This record gives sequence, C-alpha cells and structure tokens, in this order.
Amino acid sequence: MTGRNPELQSSLFLRSLAGEVTSIPPVWLMRQAGRYLPEYRETRKKAKTFLDLCYTPELAIEVTLQPIRRFGFDASIMFSDILVVPDALGQKVWFVEGEGPKLEPLKDETDLAKLSVDRVLAHLDPVFQTIRGLKQSLPASTPLIGFCGAPHTVATYMIGGGSGTQSEIIRRSYEAPGFVRKVIDQATEASIRYLKRQIDEGVDAIQLFESWASAVPPALVEDHIIAPLRRIVTALKAYAPQMPILAFPRTMASEVVRATAQLPVSAISIETGLSLSEARKQVGQKQALQGNLDPLLMVTGGDAIDRAVDAARATMQGHPYILNLGHGITPDASIASVERLLKSVRG
Amino acid sequence: MTGRNPELQSSLFLRSLAGEVTSIPPVWLMRQAGRYLPEYRETRKKAKTFLDLCYTPELAIEVTLQPIRRFGFDASIMFSDILVVPDALGQKVWFVEGEGPKLEPLKDETDLAKLSVDRVLAHLDPVFQTIRGLKQSLPASTPLIGFCGAPHTVATYMIGGGSGTQSEIIRRSYEAPGFVRKVIDQATEASIRYLKRQIDEGVDAIQLFESWASAVPPALVEDHIIAPLRRIVTALKAYAPQMPILAFPRTMASEVVRATAQLPVSAISIETGLSLSEARKQVGQKQALQGNLDPLLMVTGGDAIDRAVDAARATMQGHPYILNLGHGITPDASIASVERLLKSVRG
Repeated sequence: MTGRNPELQSSLFLRSLAGEVTSIPPVWLMRQAGRYLPEYRETRKKAKTFLDLCYTPELAIEVTLQPIRRFGFDASIMFSDILVVPDALGQKVWFVEGEGPKLEPLKDETDLAKLSVDRVLAHLDPVFQTIRGLKQSLPASTPLIGFCGAPHTVATYMIGGGSGTQSEIIRRSYEAPGFVRKVIDQATEASIRYLKRQIDEGVDAIQLFESWASAVPPALVEDHIIAPLRRIVTALKAYAPQMPILAFPRTMASEVVRATAQLPVSAISIETGLSLSEARKQVGQKQALQGNLDPLLMVTGGDAIDRAVDAARATMQGHPYILNLGHGITPDASIASVERLLKSVRG
Repeated sequence: MTGRNPELQSSLFLRSLAGEVTSIPPVWLMRQAGRYLPEYRETRKKAKTFLDLCYTPELAIEVTLQPIRRFGFDASIMFSDILVVPDALGQKVWFVEGEGPKLEPLKDETDLAKLSVDRVLAHLDPVFQTIRGLKQSLPASTPLIGFCGAPHTVATYMIGGGSGTQSEIIRRSYEAPGFVRKVIDQATEASIRYLKRQIDEGVDAIQLFESWASAVPPALVEDHIIAPLRRIVTALKAYAPQMPILAFPRTMASEVVRATAQLPVSAISIETGLSLSEARKQVGQKQALQGNLDPLLMVTGGDAIDRAVDAARATMQGHPYILNLGHGITPDASIASVERLLKSVRG
C-alpha cells in the first residue's frame, strides 16, 4: 500500500468518501474511458481483442488517462472489466463486437471444479502492472479507483454465459441452490484476493459493481447479494481499514440499497431509476451517495443537463455526494454533453 | 353496466378488492390464457395473426375460458393485448413470432396527426363482443377483468416501435417533451373511452398495466406515469364509482408504487423484485396488494412454490391480498407448477 499523499487526501473525491460535504461535488463517470471518446477508439484498434486491451498495461494505462486529460475528472478508474475474474479462474471468456461478453457457461460442479482460485493473481498480473503505471502517471491529486464485479453479478455471467441471461442464475438457484452458492463463493474468494492485491498496488478506493442486482428476487437478496458483499467488505476492512469502498447495487429496490448501506462501506452508488431523495433515506448520515444522472442525458445534451445537475445538488444538499451517472456512459454520448455537465457542476 | 349478482360480489377476488382480508387469498395469473397451455396453442392455430386472435370474439372467448376450466382461477381476464389501442388509433401494429410486437413508430406530430381517437371504439367492437360473450359463458362466480396498458407504456410502443426500445420515449422526452406529452395524451384519451365501454359491457374490474414503469427516471414519473393514470382513474371513478381498479406499476421503485397508491385505486399489483413487506408500507390499509411470485417458479416447480406461497401469505397476514405472479406466466411454464401453486394456496 503506497503512502497517501496530502494532495490526494484533499481531493474532492476522497473527502466525500470520508463523509465530508464539499461545496462542489466531485465528478467522474462510470465507463468514462470508453467508446464515446475518439482517442479511445483509436487506442482500441491497437489491441486484437477487448481482453487484450485490458491485459496490455501500456494500452490500459493510456485509455484510463484519456478522460482525465480531456476532462479533468475528479477520479480515475483503472481500465479493466469485471469478467477478468472468471477469465482468471480459467473459464472461457470472449467478447463479440456489438453483442457484449460471452462465457462458456458452468453447467454443474464438474465444470466449476475445473476453475482454480490459485491461478487468479498470476493471471491478473497485467492489471497490477496497469495500477502501478497509473500511480506513476496520474496527476498527483487524482485518486485511482480499483474495482471488481460483485459476486452475484460475476456468477450471473459464469452460469448464464453472457448478457441477456440474468435469469439463468435465479432459475438454477431455485433448482440447485448448492451449486449456485459454490459459484458465488468462488467468485467471492477470487475477488477478495484480487482486491487485496489492487490495494497493495496502490488504488485509492474500491468500487464493487453489482450490475445485476435488480434481477434478484427479494427472497434471494441476502444469499446472492448481501452475504457475499459482507464477506468481501469485512475482509478488505480487516486488511486495509482506511480503504474507502463504494458499493453499486444497481437496482431501484430501496431495501436492497438499505441492506447494502448497512455494510461498512463509504459510499453507495445509485442507479438512475431510484431517486436521490429516496436513496438518501436508506443510507447513513456519513455515507456518501454517488449518482445518478440518466446516461441518456449525455446523448440528448442541452439544458436538460443543467436542470438535472441542479436538481441532484439541491436534493443532496448537506450530504456527502459524488456526482456520476446512474450507469455507464454509452458509446453514442457526445463530448459536448460531458463538457456541459462539468461546466454545470463546476461553473 | 350489468347488475352485480351476489355470487360475484361474494367472490374472493371482489371481496379482496373491497378491502376485505379473506382467509384464503384469491388466485389468478397474469397471462393465464397463454402459450404454456396446449389448448391455447391449438386455438392459436385457428387465427392467422395474433391480432386476429384478439379480434375474433369466438376465439378470444375460448382462450379466456381455457384456464378457468382447467384451473378454476378466482378471476378471469379478457383475452386481448395492450397494443389494440394504438392499432385502433390507426397506427400500424403487427406481431413477429418469437420477437414480440412491432409498430411503425411515430416520429413527429405529423405522424401523430394521422391517428384518430374517434375511430377507437368502432375498431375495438370485437373486444366488446368478447366481453359480452364472456359474461354469458363464465361461471357466475368468476369475475371478469377488463384492462388496458397505462399511457406511458402504450406511448413507449407508439414512439419506440417495439420491445427493446423502452428508452426511446425517454430520450424524446428530454429532446421534445411537447411531442411526447401529446402522444401520452392521445393514449390516455383513447384508454378512457375504451375502458368506459368495457365497463358498459360488464367487466367487473379494470387493471391498468404500466409494464414499462421501471424505464421512467424519477424526474419524469409524475408526467409520464402518475398524471395520466390520475386522469384515467378520475374519469372512471366519475363514470362508475363502484368499479374496482387495479394498477400495476411494474417497478421496484417504492416511491412509484407509493405515488400510484395515492390514486383512488382498489389494488396495486407488485412486481417480483419489490418485496411484499416493502410494498405493504407504501399502500393504504384497505388497498389490496396483488402479486408477486417469481414467474420462474412456474418453470422450475417443486417445493420452492410452497415456500414462496407460504412466505407471501405470512407477509400479507391481515392485509387484503390477491395472489398472483410478479409478471406474466411464461410459455415454458409447466401445468404441474400451476396446479401445485393452486394446491399450495387452497390446500
């Protein structure tokens, strides 16, 4: 774990995560290093596959830095993907242009037994090189966020085999809860090792992406979402008590947000469909909220952006707040909209 | 409006809608007349297109009755589709097997001006014939539910052109709110006329399906969902004060459920992702809740069904409750699962 320099500690982002109400909220965007940027599309061409881009430190560092250079966001997030974990465990993972990720789905415990948590850290060495490189090249005042997918979300892909199959893990959970629990456990264990190592390499905060939280019926929320997150957060807090953790339960269900907020996390990221006023009722007074502007606003642009920013800030008055979107920025977003967003926040 | 016979009034379904806590909850399933039934698939072959099935009273009556004959559900719902309203307005609507509905999307006010609310009732005459036929052929104790799509959901299809395009109406609402408002108004006006006429023909309750509620960001909920529903409910309450109305805001957002429950509706139908305990906090003491078993349980079967039924009934103890799924039953559901569900409820 690298020493924490004063410039970083006084950054808007880390102050918000420490529970401080800043006069201007820090801003960063999920997927800020992405296809809406022409410089990203240029760099993307240098890697054969999307996973190659994630695993080539020079390129991953470059795309991480691009939105920082262009927009001066208040936080950077290492360029990677949540599916490097199943890939590192030994599952076949590939990306089809325009269709998203594909995995050879785990059908049973025999398939699961072929994976090994012991190969994860060696396989992910390029990610750790990326983190080290970023710590050298990021502006001294720009915090670096490490991340991984939350276990239910990662297991959704491991069992379902791709996007659009979020219900498969639920179906299997009704039919074969033992198998599903083992897959979630495997993802959890791999994530703990992966995140501890990200902390060793110097990330300044960790975000846990539970992107498919909304697919989990209430009766399974504790087993699929909360218990695995608790295991991760507890392990990280024991390992690095000061490390801020952001959890992103992507769901409109207030009670899932509330249950997540009962874990010792510094911030909860809120999806677009849940209002910030409702979200605020679910979290502690010192727990920052992050979110939740509609990513569509980055496509449509105009003064709707200013209105959304003003409304969010008015709602979050007096509460630690990080301005972000409710989900990743989309490839059809415009640079002018991002610029307008930043101008609207920073004046 | 037909006279209300005592057998109907003492049905579990209408008693629950009147705010009574029944010792056994009434049960019906959204899409209970559907592809999971072999007799439905047989009848389906007799109609060239899906809309033909909706518009041929003899066939629509037959498929409505099939699940009542087989399972003795506590309520029937007229077989139709929410997209008969845009079809009746004059928009081109068709169904592609395995892909769902398609519409020639409204691009602007010129497209909208080609539609006319004055042709709606004549066009939908076959639906009214279906209702009359059902009132003759349903068991005297089985209430008939009429329905339509809520305006935002119908407008989602009118502007987006099909499934998988729920964000188009939101995007247009940021860019051209006036146009979107007019489309929603058109759907609202057509729905009011359509539902009044359903009441004239003898339906015993009305359900409003806001199937795409979850796609509406908080800032647009009042304009897209609540205000149009208020207009419909107010018009129907003035027209037929005793007519029970069920609203189905398909969303996990507690505050959307709460806002819907503030309208004078008799019941709120709850989707699978929102827990009944959380839902119960959002509604009035006399307002029935309906839902919200996971439709996947009708595919996976087994004793998970009994556990889900027991949990739902335990949570709903002391509150008027209608047992249903959180969304429509799917084509891959098994008849044995539906039988088990009914046995689990009725003993």
